[in-house]
Amino acid sequence: MGKQKNKPRPKALPPKGFRDYFSVDVSARIDMLNKISEVYHLYGFEQFESSAVETVEALGKFLPDVDRPNEGVFAWKEEDDWLALRYDLTAPLARAYAQNRNDLPNPYRRFAMGPVWRNEKPGPGRFRQFYQCDADTVGSSSMAADAEICTMLSDTLERVGIERGDYIVRVNNRKVLDGIMEKVGLIDPDNPTKFSEEKGIVLRAIDKFDRLGSEGVKQLLGSGRVDDSGDFTTGAGLTAGQIDVLMGFMKALGSTSDQTLNNLICLVKGSKIGEAGVQELEQISNLVVAQGYGTERILLDPSVVRGLGYYTGPVYEAELTFEINDEKGRLRKFGSVAGGGRYDDLVKRFTGQEVPAAGISIGVDRLLAALRMRGQIDTENVGPVVITVMDRDRMGDYQAMVSELRGAGIRSEVYLGNPKNFGNQLKYADNRKSPIAIIEGGDEKAAGVVQIKDLILGAELAKKATLEEWKSRPSQTTCPRSELVKHVCEMLLAQGQTN
Amino acid sequence: MGKQKNKPRPKALPPKGFRDYFSVDVSARIDMLNKISEVYHLYGFEQFESSAVETVEALGKFLPDVDRPNEGVFAWKEEDDWLALRYDLTAPLARAYAQNRNDLPNPYRRFAMGPVWRNEKPGPGRFRQFYQCDADTVGSSSMAADAEICTMLSDTLERVGIERGDYIVRVNNRKVLDGIMEKVGLIDPDNPTKFSEEKGIVLRAIDKFDRLGSEGVKQLLGSGRVDDSGDFTTGAGLTAGQIDVLMGFMKALGSTSDQTLNNLICLVKGSKIGEAGVQELEQISNLVVAQGYGTERILLDPSVVRGLGYYTGPVYEAELTFEINDEKGRLRKFGSVAGGGRYDDLVKRFTGQEVPAAGISIGVDRLLAALRMRGQIDTENVGPVVITVMDRDRMGDYQAMVSELRGAGIRSEVYLGNPKNFGNQLKYADNRKSPIAIIEGGDEKAAGVVQIKDLILGAELAKKATLEEWKSRPSQTTCPRSELVKHVCEMLLAQGQTN
Repeated sequence: MGKQKNKPRPKALPPKGFRDYFSVDVSARIDMLNKISEVYHLYGFEQFESSAVETVEALGKFLPDVDRPNEGVFAWKEEDDWLALRYDLTAPLARAYAQNRNDLPNPYRRFAMGPVWRNEKPGPGRFRQFYQCDADTVGSSSMAADAEICTMLSDTLERVGIERGDYIVRVNNRKVLDGIMEKVGLIDPDNPTKFSEEKGIVLRAIDKFDRLGSEGVKQLLGSGRVDDSGDFTTGAGLTAGQIDVLMGFMKALGSTSDQTLNNLICLVKGSKIGEAGVQELEQISNLVVAQGYGTERILLDPSVVRGLGYYTGPVYEAELTFEINDEKGRLRKFGSVAGGGRYDDLVKRFTGQEVPAAGISIGVDRLLAALRMRGQIDTENVGPVVITVMDRDRMGDYQAMVSELRGAGIRSEVYLGNPKNFGNQLKYADNRKSPIAIIEGGDEKAAGVVQIKDLILGAELAKKATLEEWKSRPSQTTCPRSELVKHVCEMLLAQGQTN
Repeated sequence: MGKQKNKPRPKALPPKGFRDYFSVDVSARIDMLNKISEVYHLYGFEQFESSAVETVEALGKFLPDVDRPNEGVFAWKEEDDWLALRYDLTAPLARAYAQNRNDLPNPYRRFAMGPVWRNEKPGPGRFRQFYQCDADTVGSSSMAADAEICTMLSDTLERVGIERGDYIVRVNNRKVLDGIMEKVGLIDPDNPTKFSEEKGIVLRAIDKFDRLGSEGVKQLLGSGRVDDSGDFTTGAGLTAGQIDVLMGFMKALGSTSDQTLNNLICLVKGSKIGEAGVQELEQISNLVVAQGYGTERILLDPSVVRGLGYYTGPVYEAELTFEINDEKGRLRKFGSVAGGGRYDDLVKRFTGQEVPAAGISIGVDRLLAALRMRGQIDTENVGPVVITVMDRDRMGDYQAMVSELRGAGIRSEVYLGNPKNFGNQLKYADNRKSPIAIIEGGDEKAAGVVQIKDLILGAELAKKATLEEWKSRPSQTTCPRSELVKHVCEMLLAQGQTN
């Protein structure tokens, strides 16, 4: 490589905002995806997977807080097309449904899982690639589809290990919010797009209620807000009266679902779309109650709006309600791990015909983080049985041993590093959390035996054993070479390993 | 959406070379990835997952047939960096290993699976996103690491359903080829990069032996070749004498491993690197034989070179040897489904220190295609039990039924389309391959019963049943509402469904 001598070496780092996952972090995610898939499958959804890359025009522009074209996505130009990495799993579904609608069952119920990408400023714990696991029903205008998603979300959270009482699925309806906006003069029924910019700002402001609190939202609805870093966000420019009505909406939560519905109906009275929204909420509420889901699991909550621009009716959100210490050591609720809603216009972009649809997206990585904080995920796993190399010319012997062990289903490997220093071999086994090391030096070979070292017991004994214990359960035994598999199996069993 | 009226609608298509996967095509792949993972895990490898996006400089340029910078990858500029989608799983491993080498076990043995992207001209059956499943040992110079990868590859193919005799793992060594090139004057030991361009052309030409045959390769080694489409590929410009020696190398395969090794040693005699290569091949051969893998599974084959530029020693390839009809109806061998080798310099790019490494990559989608052609993969799966909607005002009743069924672990759903036309509901159940439909109209409700329709038996009977058969096993039964779950379970059992 003489030519490259003067070239600087590439940096051994992933791009900003991207990260690697090792060992249990990968298997824990796979385990979670399997559990979520089980529930989605049980509910009748069918698997679907699209590619990571779509045309920018097919993806559309529905990300929150996005002002200039292509912001929010990773995009590049190819011949005449702009291509981009998908930012969610819903936009590709809308494209695929429009493409295959004549061949798919109607309604089409699919689930999908995989990474999505957001071209956002990375921060601590905020990554630009993360996993989502979605389920959607396309082609159904029934509120039963929405209600089902809420019960399924509840079942899914419990299936992955979140206990009842530690989460809440909140439901609201964009149409109710539209009704309120109509009442304060922010929506003109005869010209729906007239105030679309102000409406967008209002949606995004309300979506930040959890994070900014009442005062912050009020500023965003009014003249604007300066954040901690000094950046100014332009407000919606509403009057104090308009702001009061909107804030009243967010506080319309009653102590029962009926009370909440009553509060809302008062607020939207006279607005057709608002009244339709309240009626939809009532239907969802009745359907989930018919299935035995009370307000401790699924709750009508007017403060939920969801940031995405494509929702047209019911919106849902799952929040973990237990408290954790945030990065500054302050106690706060863990927060949202899933969100979704009804998006009746997304397929219409392609076909011109309205196709009702509703779905949910679980943020798998956030859910994993929550379980990890609760100590519900193993932080390390058991390594392989390691066959040490005492004589590098006898690799064939060691390979034959490992073949026998693997043949018996025992996870194992021959040490493949430089065998010169035996200490390094044991250090390796220790680093891998290996349960057992096998030793066959020249003497053992001559005697037709192998030594089996119990590394787990050895570590325990080294910490705290009495002489009696050392004697009663020695951490190293010798057995005939021909009985290697049998003795390794027994030792793993004694250790309680499933390997 | 008045503003958008005049905008053309986006095309409902994925970008060229990308595709969607539905239902069983997704679950079959997951099933295969699980099986491959099991074998890799059994061999002691640990899971690892990197993001899809890397810096272009970290990825490096090792793709075959790539002439201009960034060709072959999907890349875009971000501030000062060029980012790109990974084109394989090896380059990200080298980056991650270099980054974390002080914390990782040594050797580091990892497996990884996921999509990779190639910015190539798409063609029939050639996609620009596909799945790989890799295993690599980083930090071991032992030929035992290479031998193990070959035995593991053999085990893996059998695990996913390829029968012994239907595949062959071929092994060769780049150093042997280097030795031959040294002998014909194409490598100057004192100036290794002198003929690097010619060497690259020779590698790529030999890699095409399977596809182009002896004549095609000879043209590429000589003055060049015109392909079917009329495109001209520049040749290496070798003399007839040089070409003869190189072609002799590719035909050095003997009837036993010893004979092959003898042929090779004659060809490279006097070249240090060539002789080292033959010695490595001999070691691998001995190690796999020690584990009981004969030449019917793992074969030394001098015609294997692998296209990738980063290999430095042993290279391996798994080929499926059974014949299929290609797109033109001609019988041909299915071909390569996995490849790998030793790449001792890949980590060095980052660290400056040589780190020996060897690994394998299985082309999961090609392997799936092979199993599908052999009829070894289900082409459809069983749908959910469908509860039909006879009265849309009683959705609560139907939802309660589906809750009970799901509670018993039975995959089921309420029909969520427009319930007006009952025929559509049964058509839907048929389209979903549903085993059972549940019917509860007003009469049934009043009588406290439900009807259970056996759709699988119904379809059978409709095809060919006698009157006797219709009577002896009616495809529709009535049962008390309170015994719904019990009767559905029994019917599924009678159908032989595991649901």
